[in-house]
Amino acid sequence: MKKQSAIPGTHEVGAQSAIRSVTAPKGFSASGVRCGIKAEGKDLALIYSEVPAAAAAVFTSNKVKAAPLLISEEHILDGRIQAIVVNSGLANCCTGEQGIEDAARMAKLTATELNIPETSVLVASTGKIGPRLHIEKIEQGIKEAAANLSSSGGADAARAIMTTDTRPKEAALELELFGRKITLGGIAKGAGMIHPGLATMLAFITTDALISPELLKKALLHSVDRSFNMITVDGDMSTNDMVAIMANGLATTAEGEEITYPGKEFDLFQAALDELSIDLAKQIPADGEGATKLLEVRVKGALIEEDARQFARAVAGSNLVKAAFYGCDPNVGRIMAALGQAGEEMEPEEVDIYFGDQLMFRNGCGATFDPAKVASIMEQKEIRIDIDLDLGKAEATAWGCDLSPEYVKINAHYRT
Amino acid sequence: MKKQSAIPGTHEVGAQSAIRSVTAPKGFSASGVRCGIKAEGKDLALIYSEVPAAAAAVFTSNKVKAAPLLISEEHILDGRIQAIVVNSGLANCCTGEQGIEDAARMAKLTATELNIPETSVLVASTGKIGPRLHIEKIEQGIKEAAANLSSSGGADAARAIMTTDTRPKEAALELELFGRKITLGGIAKGAGMIHPGLATMLAFITTDALISPELLKKALLHSVDRSFNMITVDGDMSTNDMVAIMANGLATTAEGEEITYPGKEFDLFQAALDELSIDLAKQIPADGEGATKLLEVRVKGALIEEDARQFARAVAGSNLVKAAFYGCDPNVGRIMAALGQAGEEMEPEEVDIYFGDQLMFRNGCGATFDPAKVASIMEQKEIRIDIDLDLGKAEATAWGCDLSPEYVKINAHYRT
Repeated sequence: MKKQSAIPGTHEVGAQSAIRSVTAPKGFSASGVRCGIKAEGKDLALIYSEVPAAAAAVFTSNKVKAAPLLISEEHILDGRIQAIVVNSGLANCCTGEQGIEDAARMAKLTATELNIPETSVLVASTGKIGPRLHIEKIEQGIKEAAANLSSSGGADAARAIMTTDTRPKEAALELELFGRKITLGGIAKGAGMIHPGLATMLAFITTDALISPELLKKALLHSVDRSFNMITVDGDMSTNDMVAIMANGLATTAEGEEITYPGKEFDLFQAALDELSIDLAKQIPADGEGATKLLEVRVKGALIEEDARQFARAVAGSNLVKAAFYGCDPNVGRIMAALGQAGEEMEPEEVDIYFGDQLMFRNGCGATFDPAKVASIMEQKEIRIDIDLDLGKAEATAWGCDLSPEYVKINAHYRT
Repeated sequence: MKKQSAIPGTHEVGAQSAIRSVTAPKGFSASGVRCGIKAEGKDLALIYSEVPAAAAAVFTSNKVKAAPLLISEEHILDGRIQAIVVNSGLANCCTGEQGIEDAARMAKLTATELNIPETSVLVASTGKIGPRLHIEKIEQGIKEAAANLSSSGGADAARAIMTTDTRPKEAALELELFGRKITLGGIAKGAGMIHPGLATMLAFITTDALISPELLKKALLHSVDRSFNMITVDGDMSTNDMVAIMANGLATTAEGEEITYPGKEFDLFQAALDELSIDLAKQIPADGEGATKLLEVRVKGALIEEDARQFARAVAGSNLVKAAFYGCDPNVGRIMAALGQAGEEMEPEEVDIYFGDQLMFRNGCGATFDPAKVASIMEQKEIRIDIDLDLGKAEATAWGCDLSPEYVKINAHYRT
């Protein structure tokens, strides 16, 4: 974690602050409880804004969509949400009509406990695909979660949405808008089935900024394209992925300070949301199933940004590249093969590739490098791969992880 | 291996026959020798037809193409080839102008030894990307290979093109055309970097049928789409993939018996080439890096054949599905997620899924199955997954393998 934020005018909510989570912004509380779906640990999370919040969400592009997403897609239509309820352990996917009833029931139970309309509740689930939810356990869990809502409950919520994650994922950030301190907070979970394709995991972001639902949606899509859509763990896209944001406006009471059109204040908000989203997103491959290393793949010199993204993701997503990094094997040829496989415009004989500060390939051919320096780079926990296509000016960054035997072990016996 | 061929009028060249390889058809000889590129074993193969043969080839669709492919693409333009030279150990890719000179030199040296034009030689390489070929070793190897050409040399050639393969891949087939016995033979190699996208590995097919280059190309494209383009080991597409066929016509001397237009004889030839190609193609994932099981994914009920292919490949290529089969975990939900990820038209609530003869999902929801029977199916070496989308009449089959920790170990230390 950087101490200093990269964006002028923003800074991270530091370790000295009590809360780096969804409850960092004003007026948000959260909780995480155990209702007994997972074999152990907390498995039901609730995030609540004390006033209705502008909201936006992106959902998986997988054609097989879990029941909670179908309910949430309806509830977010008006751009207003006040609570998010999430269970882990079961995905409530491939559960038919019953699954949709169960997801609607989760919204209704939450609405009743919080005394808000059920259309103000987003529902998310993550876990095994197929089995029906244990709705009685969830009912009990929702009651307990509502009773335990607290401004310090973000950490519990972050834990309660975990499946194969080995650690909770949280972040927060402050910026100044209209001379007032604005806070952004978020939690996320991975750690398998992570791959580009709209939303790619669960992430929930909160802010006390005052912004219209339309601009909030615009900002979220922009950030997701540069963060959650640029991470890959295993090339598999989940049926349950969702990124949602709530903006309750409680940092300000002045109506003239609502962001309702693009401009300087929107740009500042966008930059901060990008940074927060990237922070959360990177935590996912860093904790990818079986991962021992975070790979940051930066592509520049592409003709257009979408090409740059495809190239970066193709490299970060290649099993062969990932396995080579696991083995500390500087197999740059596999990066060339992955680039060529992306299918976008490139000139192989123009490509330069760096591992950290070491030039590995120049003009598409192997360069002379310092083996000792490269060996030390390959052993680091975070490795940067810079690729210059030398065709245009577009660039993009993707994040992935190495592929270890442990990934296979985790996924060979997940269900049973 | 089936004893009886599935196609009326054809039968496999059985174990009683001496030769089930590229040298099974009349007039073909082959050899495989060691020239010293690989750490051990044979690493240079030669296939030769005693007369010029009609020829066709498909090459990788990767934008990064190895030097030998650039040379071979030129040499095959006129549809006539008489020899194929292949080295393993080094891919001659990302080797710049020098690499192209080296590949051209391989063709020239082979042509000199065989006293044929250099444009009658196809060149292929497989192995590590990046380093330059050891052209002096290859020169010596070509001399030795030419001196060792033999009608029983197919097995040596099949060994000499192996990289991480654990066993050679060969097949042969007989059929009757115009009342005469026609033979098809082939060799192939995998075993990593295997994924759909035109040609996906090295395969060389020979036949003594008399067929025009145009129809041979048509037949090859048809077969490749149903065989080599339907296998996946790890989602990575090689820079060096090539499938080539030579038809020397030596089974007949009657000019009226050349296949020069579509019709009954062409259809028989096509069916036999499909069968031979599928036989060779299936051997690749069956011997995939670290694979312990062959997965056959049959999709029916798709709207169009291309959709069916995409669905079948998405399932066979999913890391999560593959890892589950390695662990004997009947995680059918992951198959649903993989289908949804393919992006083609589907109705999740119409999908039926079978493992072997056991119905696992009916109408998109979990079915009641016999756990003991399913457990026994999951432990087999070849597992059939049948998926019925219930939308249309198109179908397709893909072949893949499970994902084991051994795959990662092989690929973590391939280069060093």
